Amino acid sequence: MTESGVYRSSGTNAPLPLPNVEQVELQAMLDWLSTYGADAQGGVTRLLYDAAWCEAQVALAAKMQEKGLSPEFDQSGNLYGTLKGEGEESATGAEELPVVTGSHIDSVVYGGKYDGAYGVVAGVLALEYLQKHFGAPKRTLQVVSLCEEEGSRFPFAYWGSRSITGITSLEDVEHLKDQDSVTFAQAISHAGFGPDSAYRPAAKNYGAFIELHIEQGQVLERLGHSIGVVSDIVGQKRFSITVSGEANHAGTTPMSWRKDALAGAAEMIAAVRGIALDAGEPLVATVGRITADPGVGNVVAARAVFSLDIRHIRQESIDRCWQDTLHAFSRIAAEQQLGLDWEEHLSVTPIPMNAEMISDIQDTCQQEQLSYWLMPSGAGHDSQIFQPACPTAMIFVPSQDGISHNPLEYTAEADLMHGFRVLVRLLYKYGYGS
Amino acid sequence: MTESGVYRSSGTNAPLPLPNVEQVELQAMLDWLSTYGADAQGGVTRLLYDAAWCEAQVALAAKMQEKGLSPEFDQSGNLYGTLKGEGEESATGAEELPVVTGSHIDSVVYGGKYDGAYGVVAGVLALEYLQKHFGAPKRTLQVVSLCEEEGSRFPFAYWGSRSITGITSLEDVEHLKDQDSVTFAQAISHAGFGPDSAYRPAAKNYGAFIELHIEQGQVLERLGHSIGVVSDIVGQKRFSITVSGEANHAGTTPMSWRKDALAGAAEMIAAVRGIALDAGEPLVATVGRITADPGVGNVVAARAVFSLDIRHIRQESIDRCWQDTLHAFSRIAAEQQLGLDWEEHLSVTPIPMNAEMISDIQDTCQQEQLSYWLMPSGAGHDSQIFQPACPTAMIFVPSQDGISHNPLEYTAEADLMHGFRVLVRLLYKYGYGS
Repeated sequence: MTESGVYRSSGTNAPLPLPNVEQVELQAMLDWLSTYGADAQGGVTRLLYDAAWCEAQVALAAKMQEKGLSPEFDQSGNLYGTLKGEGEESATGAEELPVVTGSHIDSVVYGGKYDGAYGVVAGVLALEYLQKHFGAPKRTLQVVSLCEEEGSRFPFAYWGSRSITGITSLEDVEHLKDQDSVTFAQAISHAGFGPDSAYRPAAKNYGAFIELHIEQGQVLERLGHSIGVVSDIVGQKRFSITVSGEANHAGTTPMSWRKDALAGAAEMIAAVRGIALDAGEPLVATVGRITADPGVGNVVAARAVFSLDIRHIRQESIDRCWQDTLHAFSRIAAEQQLGLDWEEHLSVTPIPMNAEMISDIQDTCQQEQLSYWLMPSGAGHDSQIFQPACPTAMIFVPSQDGISHNPLEYTAEADLMHGFRVLVRLLYKYGYGS
Repeated sequence: MTESGVYRSSGTNAPLPLPNVEQVELQAMLDWLSTYGADAQGGVTRLLYDAAWCEAQVALAAKMQEKGLSPEFDQSGNLYGTLKGEGEESATGAEELPVVTGSHIDSVVYGGKYDGAYGVVAGVLALEYLQKHFGAPKRTLQVVSLCEEEGSRFPFAYWGSRSITGITSLEDVEHLKDQDSVTFAQAISHAGFGPDSAYRPAAKNYGAFIELHIEQGQVLERLGHSIGVVSDIVGQKRFSITVSGEANHAGTTPMSWRKDALAGAAEMIAAVRGIALDAGEPLVATVGRITADPGVGNVVAARAVFSLDIRHIRQESIDRCWQDTLHAFSRIAAEQQLGLDWEEHLSVTPIPMNAEMISDIQDTCQQEQLSYWLMPSGAGHDSQIFQPACPTAMIFVPSQDGISHNPLEYTAEADLMHGFRVLVRLLYKYGYGS
């Protein structure tokens, strides 16, 4: 792992004249972008189509223009900055599809300034840098500032990538409402987008997608690696589990007569941890939310409801974990004479990243003498939406203490630059290489 | 267990001409009282010094007058109906202290019509019956409608009995506020009571106290007994337990790195159940309330807070259970690298009821051929406040399905009459006996 701020043109590939950290305004542009939606908690709150979001996208469009990239919105509000390729004609006469990098511009409520924004800012600066030093690419390169990924305003995530890939149309989501009962249709129209706007529809084809992102976990930091090469984006199942018992007076009901929903739920939650630890990495299973009814200290709980979130890079491991968990839950419910119900809220299949691109990123890290780690992404990302449609890869940089979705989210500038170097090399390879 | 609604003058003691169920308006008067504070849930909501409470106490005073009992309020709003004794002078020339029966007039929010009210109504009717059939007693008998027991309006319970016994003075509670920020001082004054009212101070001495009450549990119903003779009122310890971990992303944090406050809390709550079951009856330990922070399904919980309520009739058993529990909690916290804090909210010592009166109630049940069960009260009652000041006893009748503090609270009229018969016999013995 190199810690110098000076890039070397090491390795066997392109003799890239990579810039000093001082020569790339990565941190400055992240700081600038974070002023749009700066919130009272010291973080960033930029929700789909809200004022801060609109100002940020418009400011980014101007910034793209300033950097020599032609900015263009689509009807969803996704923003592209394009570096037009010169050697466009393929053997068949068709235009080669562009290689796209980027991430999302929206945030969670009281989020940090790196999640999503880093990939957008790095993409803009990478394209600026490549154009400045190498002129127009052979193949068109684009940076995208996706309109939405987090699902923080409307109960729907990945709207940006889903609208681009055509998985979801506006008709599918226009009736969704935010906390203030504003519909999706009202919000998109108020922001100046939607089918009645002058912009072209979102659906388009990518030749490849590369997403640079903070890890949002502690793996790279703890293991001491500069770059995470994402092998897979985990699949998820999410459930709501309901345990039913009988409300009883905490003083007058002998232990052996109780049907204590919270006592049962507690044993179930403890079992989840045991099952997940036994299954081994990379399986994770989490109970983060619980409520007990009536929820009074001197009343035996009649009902307990808790969340369950299971993730793994293989579907069969997710399914096995759920079966083991359900078996344990059923046994505990039977032992304690409790009712058990569950509802599956979400089921996302694991998505492996493109093998060739993974290999290219690994090569790039070696050329750059950057210590890297092949790892799954335990969080969901737009890349999982793009991968089925086009070759897709993700590059991670460390998150300090693994903190994310929080104003304390932080990645050191040196780490940001490592990711940037890998991205520049990769875009050079795909855009300018033979 | 006899199921006839006709009283027999069985046994060897007083040849009481006990009434038919039709001749005592127990159910009718309970129904009448429940119209004061009848709520939208079909139950009773009568909180200390509120309008429904005031109307109920005033109506009860009129009812006492109608029944031949001199009604009298004290400054706290406790209401007495007195049946003056004739043979008042003891050997020392001092008046013998009265024998008092009764319970409380206040309810929980959305409570039932039996809790408290049954003991008040039965007391009024018992004194009416005794006077009608036997004239004035030798020793003064009183029924008390205590102003407050539940602690449902202000965060303070047993105000009625505490003010009578002098354990608590108005100065101790006058600054307490209800949910609407009304102070105790404002509420008592608005209801027409307090030190500026014309009533005499609450503090007075009892010769004995007898409380007839619904069980609020399922013991009598399940075991098929008509009467519960209360041996002890359990002691209680209540705690708030805080488990501290680290908030982490549910997808990006491997299981073995987590400090999951909710997983730890779950194992602790499961341990509570095991420890209590191992300790055996009559120990009960309950966790009825839990919160997890941030309480989101895809975030490992940084903090979990839960209640713990331990009850037993012996202090050493309560203390041992807490020590065992704390030992288990500490072990789990250490194993899972979690922080552990606790706060003791309440500590009430167990109160044994008066042995001689217990024996008198048992004798009475035998005379009446009523099946009885000597049992602790797992709930707190005014009797635990009176017992240290004067000989005190409690009589329970079955609660259907153990339901209490709920509009569905119910005791069959035949069961109500069983308790009434025992109370009448006991008051006859103490008021008219030699």
